[in-house]
Amino acid sequence: MATNLEFYFDFSSPYGYFAAEQIDQLAAKYQREVNWHPLLLSVIFKSTGALPLTQIPLKREYTANDLMRISRLTGIAYKTPSVFPISGVNPSRAVIYLSRSQPSQAKALALALYRAFFTESQNIGEVEVVCQIAQNLGLNAEELKEGMNDPNVKEQLRHEVGAAEARGVFGSPFVIADGEPFWGFDRFYMLEEWLKRGGF
Amino acid sequence: MATNLEFYFDFSSPYGYFAAEQIDQLAAKYQREVNWHPLLLSVIFKSTGALPLTQIPLKREYTANDLMRISRLTGIAYKTPSVFPISGVNPSRAVIYLSRSQPSQAKALALALYRAFFTESQNIGEVEVVCQIAQNLGLNAEELKEGMNDPNVKEQLRHEVGAAEARGVFGSPFVIADGEPFWGFDRFYMLEEWLKRGGF
Repeated sequence: MATNLEFYFDFSSPYGYFAAEQIDQLAAKYQREVNWHPLLLSVIFKSTGALPLTQIPLKREYTANDLMRISRLTGIAYKTPSVFPISGVNPSRAVIYLSRSQPSQAKALALALYRAFFTESQNIGEVEVVCQIAQNLGLNAEELKEGMNDPNVKEQLRHEVGAAEARGVFGSPFVIADGEPFWGFDRFYMLEEWLKRGGF
Repeated sequence: MATNLEFYFDFSSPYGYFAAEQIDQLAAKYQREVNWHPLLLSVIFKSTGALPLTQIPLKREYTANDLMRISRLTGIAYKTPSVFPISGVNPSRAVIYLSRSQPSQAKALALALYRAFFTESQNIGEVEVVCQIAQNLGLNAEELKEGMNDPNVKEQLRHEVGAAEARGVFGSPFVIADGEPFWGFDRFYMLEEWLKRGGF
């Protein structure tokens, strides 16, 4: 039986945003479902010693241009956020909380948060912004706010980040399909080959 | 008039090797020529503070697997070198020396060196290995050895690495087409779109 794809993303990751716009459709084409996992990459970077793209001279400018090109090629809207990076803690907790009871709403919220950040420069690191975006989706913002403060939710996020790292996840986006790891939006062509052929 | 593509590569870069196997054919499809530029990425990394892939935990294992996948998908032979990385100084000097008088031979040598390293684990950092590979191509190994020791050749390599960095080159492979930078073998699809459409 075809297993679900595991999709890891960090809310500060623009390539993760592009991936979030495409992963479910890509998977559905090959009769696969996707489990979405928000990540706190800053925690993982501390272990691996890697640097965020924005902290490496030359790469910063290159990446800004590359993101605009991907937007033009894919037709996915993109605007460089005016605040960057943001803390993924609050939006990740919101997604984790929702995924316990309403997984499809959790995905919808994750995508809405990503879009608010990467097309409207909304600071989705802030609780109030997360709640407003949730409310626009018809979700109960008060409940969500409480959920984000639930110690079990906080603990689950910590646990999931640790579990991701233990599985070898070190970047965003990161997809695991049938145990095979694919890092980066630019590996989606390879992921598609994998799904099409059932491995290669 | 269509300008030449500028192709930058480091002899220790496996993705640079895959790029070297495809860049001339890709360019020819769109009536373009390619100028090949050997790089010493270690020099540029010192300025940018970037880390080679092999020095970042988790990424090392991921990359080893990714390279085998690219080999299977593209049909380009690849074997993880038993010595890694090697110093690119000698092979780069050899290519620079040849490119002064015999540019097409310089490309042939660069590709032969890459293949010797990434399919046969030959240590192409060593002068004698470079000369043997050149001789197998019918080149004059004695002349080449002298050329590699020519202070002008050494100076030209230093100059080219500095010029590349000044143009914003920070990785391998790196292609500049009509002033537009493309970093990574995984941007070849984007480079092709660029060449096909004349920019986008």
